[in-house]
Amino acid sequence: MKLDDLLKNTGEWLRGSGPDSDVVVSTRIRLARNLADFPFSNRASPLQKGEIESLLRDRLLRIDNGTRFSYLQVHSLNHLDRQFLVERQLISREHAASEGQRGVAIEPQESRSIMINEEDHLRLQVLRSGLALEEAWQDIDRLDDLIEQRVNYAFSEEFGYLTACPTNVGTGMRASVMLHLPALQMTRQLEKVFRALQKINLAVRGLYGEGTRASGDFYQISNQVTLGRSEADILREIREVIPQIIDYERKARATLLKESRPTILDRVYRAYGTLRSATLMTSDETIDLLSCVRLGINLHLIEDLTIPAVNELFLLTQPAHLQKMQGTVMEPEERNAARANFLRLRLNRN
Amino acid sequence: MKLDDLLKNTGEWLRGSGPDSDVVVSTRIRLARNLADFPFSNRASPLQKGEIESLLRDRLLRIDNGTRFSYLQVHSLNHLDRQFLVERQLISREHAASEGQRGVAIEPQESRSIMINEEDHLRLQVLRSGLALEEAWQDIDRLDDLIEQRVNYAFSEEFGYLTACPTNVGTGMRASVMLHLPALQMTRQLEKVFRALQKINLAVRGLYGEGTRASGDFYQISNQVTLGRSEADILREIREVIPQIIDYERKARATLLKESRPTILDRVYRAYGTLRSATLMTSDETIDLLSCVRLGINLHLIEDLTIPAVNELFLLTQPAHLQKMQGTVMEPEERNAARANFLRLRLNRN
Repeated sequence: MKLDDLLKNTGEWLRGSGPDSDVVVSTRIRLARNLADFPFSNRASPLQKGEIESLLRDRLLRIDNGTRFSYLQVHSLNHLDRQFLVERQLISREHAASEGQRGVAIEPQESRSIMINEEDHLRLQVLRSGLALEEAWQDIDRLDDLIEQRVNYAFSEEFGYLTACPTNVGTGMRASVMLHLPALQMTRQLEKVFRALQKINLAVRGLYGEGTRASGDFYQISNQVTLGRSEADILREIREVIPQIIDYERKARATLLKESRPTILDRVYRAYGTLRSATLMTSDETIDLLSCVRLGINLHLIEDLTIPAVNELFLLTQPAHLQKMQGTVMEPEERNAARANFLRLRLNRN
Repeated sequence: MKLDDLLKNTGEWLRGSGPDSDVVVSTRIRLARNLADFPFSNRASPLQKGEIESLLRDRLLRIDNGTRFSYLQVHSLNHLDRQFLVERQLISREHAASEGQRGVAIEPQESRSIMINEEDHLRLQVLRSGLALEEAWQDIDRLDDLIEQRVNYAFSEEFGYLTACPTNVGTGMRASVMLHLPALQMTRQLEKVFRALQKINLAVRGLYGEGTRASGDFYQISNQVTLGRSEADILREIREVIPQIIDYERKARATLLKESRPTILDRVYRAYGTLRSATLMTSDETIDLLSCVRLGINLHLIEDLTIPAVNELFLLTQPAHLQKMQGTVMEPEERNAARANFLRLRLNRN
């Protein structure tokens, strides 16, 4: 696979519209795994990191999971291409920025991917559209088995899977659900919901994981604890609480429509109008306006756009995607013009 | 004439596009006159005010100035109709709000009008599109003569025309030019221009005269002094300074286009887009957005709208006009919805 082939499509998890996709954008599970016979990546010498990468690349490329993995050596990609993979959620920011031999294996639909030599030797990821914790779990569990048949995982009978950072020891699992909560935001109920989540040890983060502000009212809910609980227990906990949040958000939307329909309609139409009119547009503003349009579609206030189309716009208007589409590196100001132009073309062709 | 007939058109001075109309919206001259045989309106008894009104109405309706005046008794109009006349600049806010028998004579094109029993017994007004001080002066001077043939003006050889307020004594003339100065505003040069104007005793006011903030970067420049100078002198002073301001504004526009074209384009298109999209819109926001669109047309950034069309929207989106068009009294929130709806219909039909 050439990296540029990814440009032709968006990941299946974004194109699809899974269960409860009016509120739940996507479900993601990742597993942290390490090889027993090597030091953790942060302790490994450059030579050892090279060996780890070669070995795992070789093993992963042999796996036939219905489809086969493509493989990219992240260390030989330029800055733009790494950023592009970050925007697609195929690698982490840390993986893009770190040093040494490392890679990523990606299935054609982009639902499954595996980072090599990130914080751990292996970081398996499964992404699904909508709320699909069970399906994602079965999928990643099968993938984990396929890999385990080919390598020797670092595993302790006492602790479970061993990981570079103690916070991942045990299951090595982080399950997260990305929620779109504009109505809870508008009705100022988010704080309340988040406090309840923290009490049961679930973490809440903005759109792009730690250290990023919550753009466009997108929030990732994930487990904090990996040790002393089974995967099934952790997933059950999340599965129990998410429907409540979905319910709160839907009720808040219904209340908004009932009590402030003119205001919401105005807000939605202005956002849509601005996306179709502006000739300069930052990433942040795009996310905020698309968030508002996404709400508008879900409230049936906008009829000529679909959720998958909006999801795609979120993806394609990111800086690296814009530059890849244009085939050139651009300064922020140029990107703002290109982004606005792209949005105008996409949204005015109806 | 029925007042509602005015709704069918806008004043000729708004529809036309007079000299320098990229910067100068309109020229207005008014003359304050009083009858020698009656106390000033503020000193007159209700009975005397009635006599003044009857006498002047009778005299004005006899004048044949090519066209003939229609006449409305302002005291018998309801609040909405008075507000409607204020918005059309046919009567002043004070005339709408005051007490007692009073009226307004209006020529069909709305270029000439005369208030009866405002601060003075007579307030003659001529309105012209663009910069047209000379034409407006000749027009109002002729009208003044026609009236003087029929009534006995209060005139002193020493002071000139006598008026209720000393600031109008002498010529009784106020000449004003309404300028659209968005580029001077954006480039922060307005203060400088205004200070220069004040030095030569010209007053600067926002869109709707005294006590109103400068909405949409519209400014009225007018003479302060009426005493001790001839009409010709006063007009010459204004005529000398206005072309300089026009020149400053045009240079500022050229600079903006040259140095910040992308920013200006974005601002103009966003304004246009918002006017076409919003479903709630206040008067103030409408004025600001239309001001931006007006600039966009003059900079040839918007090609599918004309200045007269935008001038008309300024007029028709005002509260009383909206209510007259809808044929019903509306609360502010209802007006905001009706205004947005009207703008969407008008601006999306291209």
